[in-house]
Amino acid sequence: MAATDIFDQIIKGDIPSYQVYEDADVLAFLDLNQATPGHTLVVPKKHVTDIFAYDDTLAAAVLTKLPKIARAIQKSDPAIIGMNIMINNGAAAGQSVFHSHIHLIPRYADDDLVLQTEASTPEHPITATEYATRAAKIIAQF
Amino acid sequence: MAATDIFDQIIKGDIPSYQVYEDADVLAFLDLNQATPGHTLVVPKKHVTDIFAYDDTLAAAVLTKLPKIARAIQKSDPAIIGMNIMINNGAAAGQSVFHSHIHLIPRYADDDLVLQTEASTPEHPITATEYATRAAKIIAQF
Repeated sequence: MAATDIFDQIIKGDIPSYQVYEDADVLAFLDLNQATPGHTLVVPKKHVTDIFAYDDTLAAAVLTKLPKIARAIQKSDPAIIGMNIMINNGAAAGQSVFHSHIHLIPRYADDDLVLQTEASTPEHPITATEYATRAAKIIAQF
Repeated sequence: MAATDIFDQIIKGDIPSYQVYEDADVLAFLDLNQATPGHTLVVPKKHVTDIFAYDDTLAAAVLTKLPKIARAIQKSDPAIIGMNIMINNGAAAGQSVFHSHIHLIPRYADDDLVLQTEASTPEHPITATEYATRAAKIIAQF
């Protein structure tokens, strides 16, 4: 049985949170470290470590809810003009609580958040052969 | 009718890509700017601008596929020890192609990628009253 973590305790109600959405499968609440105002975590009630552990049923139950939660956050504040959605899987990816969770981070014209995105990520050029080899290795896993 | 963008052209086959997964709803292919080796984009075949435009059917058709695509990438290379999944919505969030797409960025022990995540994001403390007020505004949007 998985150890109880802070999100299990929040879901159980043993630790209070500022909830914004709840259904049978997920709980969404304001992150206690607000990267920007309205920064929300969407957490599966089922204890799973990371995205790799989602089966199709859990994926449908959890990930399908993201657009409506994102829309509700966006509509809650006219100053919100964008949103980063991040799922960090594994310590190497910056995950610090090992109960899968999804960050919804609203963006504002005047925010000071610097997230490395497609516009700023350094490129690591690979050759056409390397592309083809890597694609084939991934395809072989389905 | 939406303008044709680079992802529409890739989906149509007019621009070649290193595809790793395809079904009726999504196309996944290696990003031509590899943040790390195996960096993959998952793109809905339906032209939607961003996450805010997904209805429930599209969310189920697209987002539910993420875990299995993530697993295939992970299993394709034993050096992969984590993965960042990012959806950037709006120019303010770093979106540069306005056809919704999801970044799957594998992480390696020795990669030089610096993504701002929960471990490094600066906090913007707000008061308990501000938390409660903001949560109520979001709740009111569902």
